[in-house]
Amino acid sequence: MEELKVNLGDRSYPIFIGAGLLEDRGLMRKVFRGEDLLLVSNETVAPLYMDRLENALGAGRVERCVLPDGEQHKTWENARKILDLLAEGRFHRDAVVVALGGGVVGDIAGFAAACYQRGIAFVQVPTTLLAQVDSSVGGKTGVNHPQGKNLLGAFHQPRYVVADISTLKTLNAREYRAGLAEVIKYGLIYDADFFDYLEKNLGALLEQQESALEKTIRRCCEIKAEIVAEDEREQGKRALLNFGHSFGHAIETALGYGVWLHGEAVAAGMVLASRLSVLMGWLDAADLRRVTKLLESASLPTRAPDVEPARIMEIMRMDKKVLQGNLRLILLQSIGQAIISDDYAQESLAEVLGAA
Amino acid sequence: MEELKVNLGDRSYPIFIGAGLLEDRGLMRKVFRGEDLLLVSNETVAPLYMDRLENALGAGRVERCVLPDGEQHKTWENARKILDLLAEGRFHRDAVVVALGGGVVGDIAGFAAACYQRGIAFVQVPTTLLAQVDSSVGGKTGVNHPQGKNLLGAFHQPRYVVADISTLKTLNAREYRAGLAEVIKYGLIYDADFFDYLEKNLGALLEQQESALEKTIRRCCEIKAEIVAEDEREQGKRALLNFGHSFGHAIETALGYGVWLHGEAVAAGMVLASRLSVLMGWLDAADLRRVTKLLESASLPTRAPDVEPARIMEIMRMDKKVLQGNLRLILLQSIGQAIISDDYAQESLAEVLGAA
Repeated sequence: MEELKVNLGDRSYPIFIGAGLLEDRGLMRKVFRGEDLLLVSNETVAPLYMDRLENALGAGRVERCVLPDGEQHKTWENARKILDLLAEGRFHRDAVVVALGGGVVGDIAGFAAACYQRGIAFVQVPTTLLAQVDSSVGGKTGVNHPQGKNLLGAFHQPRYVVADISTLKTLNAREYRAGLAEVIKYGLIYDADFFDYLEKNLGALLEQQESALEKTIRRCCEIKAEIVAEDEREQGKRALLNFGHSFGHAIETALGYGVWLHGEAVAAGMVLASRLSVLMGWLDAADLRRVTKLLESASLPTRAPDVEPARIMEIMRMDKKVLQGNLRLILLQSIGQAIISDDYAQESLAEVLGAA
Repeated sequence: MEELKVNLGDRSYPIFIGAGLLEDRGLMRKVFRGEDLLLVSNETVAPLYMDRLENALGAGRVERCVLPDGEQHKTWENARKILDLLAEGRFHRDAVVVALGGGVVGDIAGFAAACYQRGIAFVQVPTTLLAQVDSSVGGKTGVNHPQGKNLLGAFHQPRYVVADISTLKTLNAREYRAGLAEVIKYGLIYDADFFDYLEKNLGALLEQQESALEKTIRRCCEIKAEIVAEDEREQGKRALLNFGHSFGHAIETALGYGVWLHGEAVAAGMVLASRLSVLMGWLDAADLRRVTKLLESASLPTRAPDVEPARIMEIMRMDKKVLQGNLRLILLQSIGQAIISDDYAQESLAEVLGAA
């Protein structure tokens, strides 16, 4: 088992990564200490892992909340359903919400934990690759609004993250590959050596070889923990993690949530952002080809879906990263080196989108 | 104009207290600097003060959200209505929510500001005595749940508090007196001299004499700012501010929101807590009489309404301040000196409630 820490002063917490952690009673007794628990999951994950998790927990009151599966269910109304269970179950301030599932479950359960009695503890037990490398770490919680993804939410750090890589075996291939988009993102924005490693080991990752998987997830969590520790509330550097996401969110919103998976939209978004970086003269065309090739090898989309470019532009303007009307994007100076910039030509952005 | 500061590191903010502040363009230009604003108010306050406030603001985009008046409208669904206006109005991260009204408006508008894009700025412009001395300061925001008051919410500090005491002239007498309950609370928990001052100057306060009012509101805000600066998230000392509130919330919940005003329920709750303090042998019976007398002079209730005591007990057990099943209460050792305690006899609590 790998263990690392997110350093946030009195809100610091450990991340555990390894195979079979869900059944590791010793670990579970460390994470949970007899508090009242509400386990939140979805209809896909609950039948696979909820009993297993509950068995490892030992004594203590445990209740369950099973939501429908899918991004379209990450709503204000469903957050309220979790809150109703907490309130009607008379859960106290010292209770813990446990998010067992992917990014959607983690985001909505974390948001409910943030709102209940102005914030109670929660533990992330991510069961998708995307959640294990990205969404379960860093305290961003929230729900979607028809006007934009994650428009409503809170910063609320988990107390623990328990990433059991064995759960990835039941993940369908499409979701698994979508998670690889976020993995590749870390190489692109932060670590050229890790990008090289991914180019060499993509085969092993696609086969879910345990050592490659554990090493990869650890490195992603390390990078994320480092960035979040420096800039918890995204005043600056943390925005680098949004590489590909302005384009990606716009694609998801334009298509309607759930048509493309988040990671698929981010993959296409990373190519669009890389292409814009090339047009600005920052990124080598050869590096753009490496980006495209690696994503293609993971069977991820490398172009936007068939949507009116003007619609994508409009949604991007609404994006949270728009400050005083200027659209800031994350762009690449090279593989492993990202910057936050609003210093690009509008025509280049239009060209990238129009060409999409 | 009085000015004081709530010291919370990078979340510190000033409180301005004085007559005519709503029309003070100089002050308003200091507080607002051309950001997009959403003014949130209710059907009672908006017709009186919204135009006046907007006139003082100067240029900049201003939109309005007017909610129905009353505690029963402080709901998850109405918070969503504010959020819909922000999202559909395409407000960005640098927009500001302005709460113009009493505690209900401040709590729900602050909660919406906390949730929108994971937290945008908000400014409190309290127009009731209760909001000016209590709810607008300290960052507690939230909405009610059928299972309990303020059960859903967030800690989210305002950027400024602008307390225009002229607005109290339009407050009805019952609401004004309800605010005096919170004023008296500060004397009881923290400052015996201030309690003496209130005994001597209650007449001037009931007549809303400007100097007495300004001095009184300033002292209340000072005490609250001091306590909040020490314990923002109510891990300890801040709970003292809940004196009378465990009983009071239970009364409000048992009767249904809006039957008794919050301050009225707190007044009765303070007498119940004081009586329990006497039964425990901590508070002098003579001091209990001073408490009762001052509240009666302000025409505030000093006994619980006609509700089954068992129902009050049940609701209190659900209270946020219950930790691991022990019901903690704020009790008095003397006037000016409160303590947090679960070290009282259950029979005494039952006696106090049964005798109510």
